[in-house]
Amino acid sequence: MRTVFVTGAAGFIASNLVDRLLADDIAVVGWDNFSTGQRPFVAGALAHPRFRLVEGDNLDLPALTKAMAGCDTVFHLAANADVRFGTDHPEKDLRQNTIATFNVLEAMRANGIRRIAFSSTGSVYGEAKVIPTPENAAFPVQTSLYGASKVAGEGMIQAYCEGFGFEGYIFRFVSILGERYTHGHVFDFYRQLVEHPDHLRVLGDGSQRKSYLYVQDCVSAILHVMRAQLAAKAPHRVEIFNLGAPEYCQVRDSIHWICEALALKPRLDFTGGDRGWIGDNPFIYLDTAKVQATGWKAQLTIREGILRTLRWLQANPWVYEQR
Amino acid sequence: MRTVFVTGAAGFIASNLVDRLLADDIAVVGWDNFSTGQRPFVAGALAHPRFRLVEGDNLDLPALTKAMAGCDTVFHLAANADVRFGTDHPEKDLRQNTIATFNVLEAMRANGIRRIAFSSTGSVYGEAKVIPTPENAAFPVQTSLYGASKVAGEGMIQAYCEGFGFEGYIFRFVSILGERYTHGHVFDFYRQLVEHPDHLRVLGDGSQRKSYLYVQDCVSAILHVMRAQLAAKAPHRVEIFNLGAPEYCQVRDSIHWICEALALKPRLDFTGGDRGWIGDNPFIYLDTAKVQATGWKAQLTIREGILRTLRWLQANPWVYEQR
Repeated sequence: MRTVFVTGAAGFIASNLVDRLLADDIAVVGWDNFSTGQRPFVAGALAHPRFRLVEGDNLDLPALTKAMAGCDTVFHLAANADVRFGTDHPEKDLRQNTIATFNVLEAMRANGIRRIAFSSTGSVYGEAKVIPTPENAAFPVQTSLYGASKVAGEGMIQAYCEGFGFEGYIFRFVSILGERYTHGHVFDFYRQLVEHPDHLRVLGDGSQRKSYLYVQDCVSAILHVMRAQLAAKAPHRVEIFNLGAPEYCQVRDSIHWICEALALKPRLDFTGGDRGWIGDNPFIYLDTAKVQATGWKAQLTIREGILRTLRWLQANPWVYEQR
Repeated sequence: MRTVFVTGAAGFIASNLVDRLLADDIAVVGWDNFSTGQRPFVAGALAHPRFRLVEGDNLDLPALTKAMAGCDTVFHLAANADVRFGTDHPEKDLRQNTIATFNVLEAMRANGIRRIAFSSTGSVYGEAKVIPTPENAAFPVQTSLYGASKVAGEGMIQAYCEGFGFEGYIFRFVSILGERYTHGHVFDFYRQLVEHPDHLRVLGDGSQRKSYLYVQDCVSAILHVMRAQLAAKAPHRVEIFNLGAPEYCQVRDSIHWICEALALKPRLDFTGGDRGWIGDNPFIYLDTAKVQATGWKAQLTIREGILRTLRWLQANPWVYEQR
């Protein structure tokens, strides 16, 4: 990895990845259409001589192909990451995830680039019967358009590995949080509590169990896995890794930690039911034995990750004020 | 099921399905763009008062939506069914399978139609480790663009079932053969032997093991499963069934049966290797216990199916002469 291409470079996870790559002396071409990406997230990178930002859309294949020239590895993290509102605009997951991923693969092929890392999701397991859920769980049934679009992306990457000799790293993330986090339950809760510190509306009944991973741990895992593989010169086509913390918490736990940190005692208004919305999975917990066997280990607990996220939101009110 | 919409109605499997539906007094709107569909395959249906043919393309969403009006069930069988040459034109599987399936779902949603049957494929299992392969095999790695596009289609259908209350029947077919068969190994072997009866070029080493299903058995299975479910008024979201014969054969067996039937003794020229082409799976055999438990049973053996296919090709030279 000498010159890498990062899609969605101004996004939450990708911008953290960009900073880490630059710190490791790797040249980075950042690609973003700024539909949800944030300019402040690449402000630091832009000051770096080895960073180049190209504004463009994954649906513009000629521009994407041109921008990718000269890179040896692609980190494809750009996506419509909104699971909850998928049914409001079904074409969004198709275009921004499925077709976008196809274009990334075609741009790579046109440039002779074969190494791709892809941000998939634990949502691809649907409502898994085995928990913690391993990478080789039973062939799942999709419960969200988002999960379906990520499965579509994974499948195309795998087929390009087989058919065109690509080298694919697929990472199935749990929910990620930390610095530059711009959506999800901590974001929602914090914004509510800034507006009305005396009450908090909670989707579902608060019993939903979820696993979270701190963004720096996520980025470390991606780079650790790829470096180990490259160093070993191990021939492989596709490697799939679950990325998550070796623990889970309940939404109620998270509320407790957040309220304690903010010294608030809001009234909790639960919308009721065992899940937040249609397609919400009330229990997500991935088996991360495979990635841990590579020597990677999460540095922060879920509680610590939530508290860091909270501190970052407190220091960056522009993130929730602009919404 | 009173008025059904069949995509790819002039195709191999769909046209056989159309004839069966009409024989069962169900009104059928057939939809085909005739890119690979054959007009003679719907000639019989066109003489039927309950059949209406609409020519159009799945990529034309407004026309598709209009054509579907008034139907209560959709059989989505239109597809680019070419597994072997996927890497020659990767956009074909994306457009004709993935995006086409999305459009079918959107046209259904616009019309308030919620019941869909979908022709998926055993190729979605990639190179399965468990053989015979059950529906709940381990989360597979895709080995063809075709398989990847069918997984994408399955995933979207499943997400529409969860998100929009659709009722989905997903059938994972082995290779189907029989009347109106227009591509595959029997087609290829027969056409070669008509051209040069003294030798036969065989991809791979002939040891590939595949399972085949006779098209009438395939159509019977689809209708049997759906009727049983509708009669039981069993609430369900998604039902997935493998469809195949409870046996497999080697390519060498098939050659033997074909040559015996044609009274030929060609020299066999094997291209070598354990598979026919990149992404070819040298052993496909699906576990069909689930569909058999519904009371369906294949009427023909693989050998009988191959011989019927051969007889149909002999009686319809236009099919291979036009290529």
